[in-house]
Amino acid sequence: MLTGLDVPIVLAPMAGGPTTPELVAAVSGAGALGFLAGGYLDATALQATIAALRERTDRPFGVNLFLPDERRDEGVAEYRERLLRAGLAAGEPAWDDDNGYPGKLVLLLADPVPVVSFTFGCPDAATVERLHAVGSQVLATVTTPAEARLAAAAGVDALVVQGTEAGAHRAVFANDPADPSGGAEFGLLALVRLVAAEVDLPLVAAGGIVDGAGVAAVLAAGAVAAQLGTAFLACPEAGTKPAHLAALTAPDPRGTAITRAFTGRPARGIRNAFLEAHTAAAPAAYPQVHHVTRPIRATGDPEVMSLWAGQGYPLVRRLPAAELVATLLSEAGDAAAAVTARLGGGAR
Amino acid sequence: MLTGLDVPIVLAPMAGGPTTPELVAAVSGAGALGFLAGGYLDATALQATIAALRERTDRPFGVNLFLPDERRDEGVAEYRERLLRAGLAAGEPAWDDDNGYPGKLVLLLADPVPVVSFTFGCPDAATVERLHAVGSQVLATVTTPAEARLAAAAGVDALVVQGTEAGAHRAVFANDPADPSGGAEFGLLALVRLVAAEVDLPLVAAGGIVDGAGVAAVLAAGAVAAQLGTAFLACPEAGTKPAHLAALTAPDPRGTAITRAFTGRPARGIRNAFLEAHTAAAPAAYPQVHHVTRPIRATGDPEVMSLWAGQGYPLVRRLPAAELVATLLSEAGDAAAAVTARLGGGAR
Repeated sequence: MLTGLDVPIVLAPMAGGPTTPELVAAVSGAGALGFLAGGYLDATALQATIAALRERTDRPFGVNLFLPDERRDEGVAEYRERLLRAGLAAGEPAWDDDNGYPGKLVLLLADPVPVVSFTFGCPDAATVERLHAVGSQVLATVTTPAEARLAAAAGVDALVVQGTEAGAHRAVFANDPADPSGGAEFGLLALVRLVAAEVDLPLVAAGGIVDGAGVAAVLAAGAVAAQLGTAFLACPEAGTKPAHLAALTAPDPRGTAITRAFTGRPARGIRNAFLEAHTAAAPAAYPQVHHVTRPIRATGDPEVMSLWAGQGYPLVRRLPAAELVATLLSEAGDAAAAVTARLGGGAR
Repeated sequence: MLTGLDVPIVLAPMAGGPTTPELVAAVSGAGALGFLAGGYLDATALQATIAALRERTDRPFGVNLFLPDERRDEGVAEYRERLLRAGLAAGEPAWDDDNGYPGKLVLLLADPVPVVSFTFGCPDAATVERLHAVGSQVLATVTTPAEARLAAAAGVDALVVQGTEAGAHRAVFANDPADPSGGAEFGLLALVRLVAAEVDLPLVAAGGIVDGAGVAAVLAAGAVAAQLGTAFLACPEAGTKPAHLAALTAPDPRGTAITRAFTGRPARGIRNAFLEAHTAAAPAAYPQVHHVTRPIRATGDPEVMSLWAGQGYPLVRRLPAAELVATLLSEAGDAAAAVTARLGGGAR
């Protein structure tokens, strides 16, 4: 069983600011499994973040890493020109950014954490074994049954099963340029059932879950826990930017779409002017596009920022994280009890 | 409450052959709500089908109708030429096919059935009222929160909430030519929660559900029932074509995609040569494209037929329909009981 799950809730790692040590400590402190987001941090910054978390909690937690993509430059220069022509302050691509991955892996092997999860692929079996040898549990994030089989073959301990509903980056192993979504888009519920039929590993279900009924639903589908990110964006402990928070809680929701326009990898965000204007033209080149759009996003203008959100975002609540965990748990219990009462349970 | 739901399972209406009176009678006889598929039948054929069903069961059942689309001809002639150039026996479009809708509505008002559901839109409030006046319950099928609000305003009794996982036609009210999927693609679980927050109507959850754990999951999410179509395609009572059944149960699943290539409206089917070759070129013109591809599909060649299937299709079982309903119910009860045991229930 996955460590740290006194309650069957996992905090999704949200790179780029929203996930703070305060948020992770509050979630882990409430009996759920908190997760630090290692993406975009170099090893030194990650080390400092882990230290800050350890000052705040003794509970188990996880660290998520982005695996580096194969370098793909096609279309990046043209996309940058397009943004400049649109009057946007496009930056320079960083051609050799591996997201500090090797250094972060060295850090996590030297100074282990309870759980390490991966996004954008699965490490090889040798890497999984090295993490096991230092006492870490290893999770891979998958979006299809085929990815689940690959991760299981690498020897991971559990899978995060991510449906198309999920906010921010899709975890697709390969960023298929021919597909605007980067790969097949499975709805979470069908995906959990398909993966459960193929691999014998604990599954953490992620994507669009924002309330306790959603948590109960994925547990009924066979997951050992639900992973929620967007639901925690409005917690006071989160580092969500004010414009992002305003968009999440706007009274007239615009809905979401999957786009490569901000980073070069498909990710789900709230529709805004930048997303509508540039999604069709954005190349499958991560993290080059991330670097190109960084100065644009830094303006803080909600029409050109990435407003990552899962499909359930209109139901997000402004609650302290520990109170949110307790509320989710209570709602989930009520939802499950109602179904059991309706169906009579396993005694038939 | 929706009539006929001794067990919280609804048979999805599957037009074009799979739904037979035998299948509907077996499902309704098992305590679920069977549904006849009125699409593609004229009023006379629908009347005969209803009569055949009534000979087989006294239980409540539903009839589903396709609402006619606004006529849109753009791209149809070019698409037909494309198929002919590919060596396919494309037929003629039928420019004024309203699917016999007015006649079928007259029939259902003259000789009422317990439940009438609609796909491809929602009838106006006056029509809903006329159906109510003859004692029928009325359901609309929705794919977004906005469609749910429209249907609720028309006075329907319940909603079928269809996630993007669903097999065959998406129920999108408007067939948006600018969107390859015809409109926003919500995962079922997120959609049920979003719709439940907006409208105070019973919800029937549809899309990708093929087993009892999936049924329990959508009940936990707040649905009053799960609607399953693909799951019943391998029942001996279904009229599923042999090539379709073979594709559904093939040992190495190809997966599904949403396409307009077969009918001009977005629909999810198993990937085959025709789908891969023509999806990008197919116009948003229903039912003209349906008529153009009819002779091609009639060949029975699985590489050019529409192989409708929801995302969960690899888990389909070959069981008699009544046995499948009982199995789903038993599995759902077990799944819910396990979650309740884990969470402690509503007593907290």
